[in-house]
Amino acid sequence: MKNSVDYTLYLVTDRGLLQGRSLEKAVEEAILGGVTLVQLREKDIDTRDFYNIALKIKAITSKYNVPLIINDRVDIALAVDADGVHIGQSDMEAKIVRKLIGEEKIIGVSARNLDEAMEAEKQGADYLGVGAIFGTTTKKDAKNVSIEELKRIKSTVSIPVVAIGGISKENVSLLKDTGIEGISVISAILAEENIKEASKNLKHLFLK
Amino acid sequence: MKNSVDYTLYLVTDRGLLQGRSLEKAVEEAILGGVTLVQLREKDIDTRDFYNIALKIKAITSKYNVPLIINDRVDIALAVDADGVHIGQSDMEAKIVRKLIGEEKIIGVSARNLDEAMEAEKQGADYLGVGAIFGTTTKKDAKNVSIEELKRIKSTVSIPVVAIGGISKENVSLLKDTGIEGISVISAILAEENIKEASKNLKHLFLK
Repeated sequence: MKNSVDYTLYLVTDRGLLQGRSLEKAVEEAILGGVTLVQLREKDIDTRDFYNIALKIKAITSKYNVPLIINDRVDIALAVDADGVHIGQSDMEAKIVRKLIGEEKIIGVSARNLDEAMEAEKQGADYLGVGAIFGTTTKKDAKNVSIEELKRIKSTVSIPVVAIGGISKENVSLLKDTGIEGISVISAILAEENIKEASKNLKHLFLK
Repeated sequence: MKNSVDYTLYLVTDRGLLQGRSLEKAVEEAILGGVTLVQLREKDIDTRDFYNIALKIKAITSKYNVPLIINDRVDIALAVDADGVHIGQSDMEAKIVRKLIGEEKIIGVSARNLDEAMEAEKQGADYLGVGAIFGTTTKKDAKNVSIEELKRIKSTVSIPVVAIGGISKENVSLLKDTGIEGISVISAILAEENIKEASKNLKHLFLK
């Protein structure tokens, strides 16, 4: 399954943006709007709560046959039988995660430059999340990556590359000639009133 | 191995108490003073840092053949091949942790009353950490458990019981007639200037 993943429109969750709406409903709307992959990201939350949310989101992604990726927590990914794990540069390294999670699961790694991208590929990453590509408000420690660096990464590695960080309907067209496999979006979907339409629109703008 | 664990003096780590001293050195001193089991507990720390600390502490516990238990993070326990995991009531449930970690590893569960103790045993816990038995300053969400409740738990379950929470050289003698297998200590060891002597003294006072 992991070799046929569609990375086109990759939703990363942030419950803080939902203004009281349920994450399950938001994820379902996003999938109905064209999201092809979902990453559940939670910070500062009890492990039991994270696990319970993961179970609920897994039920939705499974219903629509969309892969579910868990941010950082390999144990939760294993516990809910998610499709993979996404790790940042301050999480466990990909080669260690691979031993825990097995060959069949997806490992995504955040990369901020070509060195990190090449190292992640060497360690067995299945895709890269490169960013922050534009200014981002949802991840404080992210620095910007230029479009040139993104292209350099894309032309160097052979695994799929997804851009992340501040991508919106206003700037998504800037990514169209980079050759990347997809865009990873948080607020441009989840902070929108109409999540389904926002997803549909972003996908259209990226692909057209 | 897990059926021969000595629970007599169980150290739970807290780097915040070390006043600049290294955790590795502190753990080694504690083991030399008689600590029989070590739980690495870290909160609000990056996964990579937690993993790196766990690797270092594992090297020390292995050197002295003392079991190492990881608080909450099953993935880190698996990654460093620790001897087990300790989970609280807001972590993943024991029955789920068991599936991830296998039969050979130790699972400890925090219990605040008889119901939680019985449920943990039912779910496959290998030992219970019961507390907070005395006032504690290191764990904000812990409520006190009476000596009577501790005895009730000890006489009901058949797995080892360790008391935790505010245990010091001043009050440890109150636990001697409860029949529990051990005492779990944080600040009465790690906040002491002479960690080795403090460990030795506590063990002596509990066993004498």
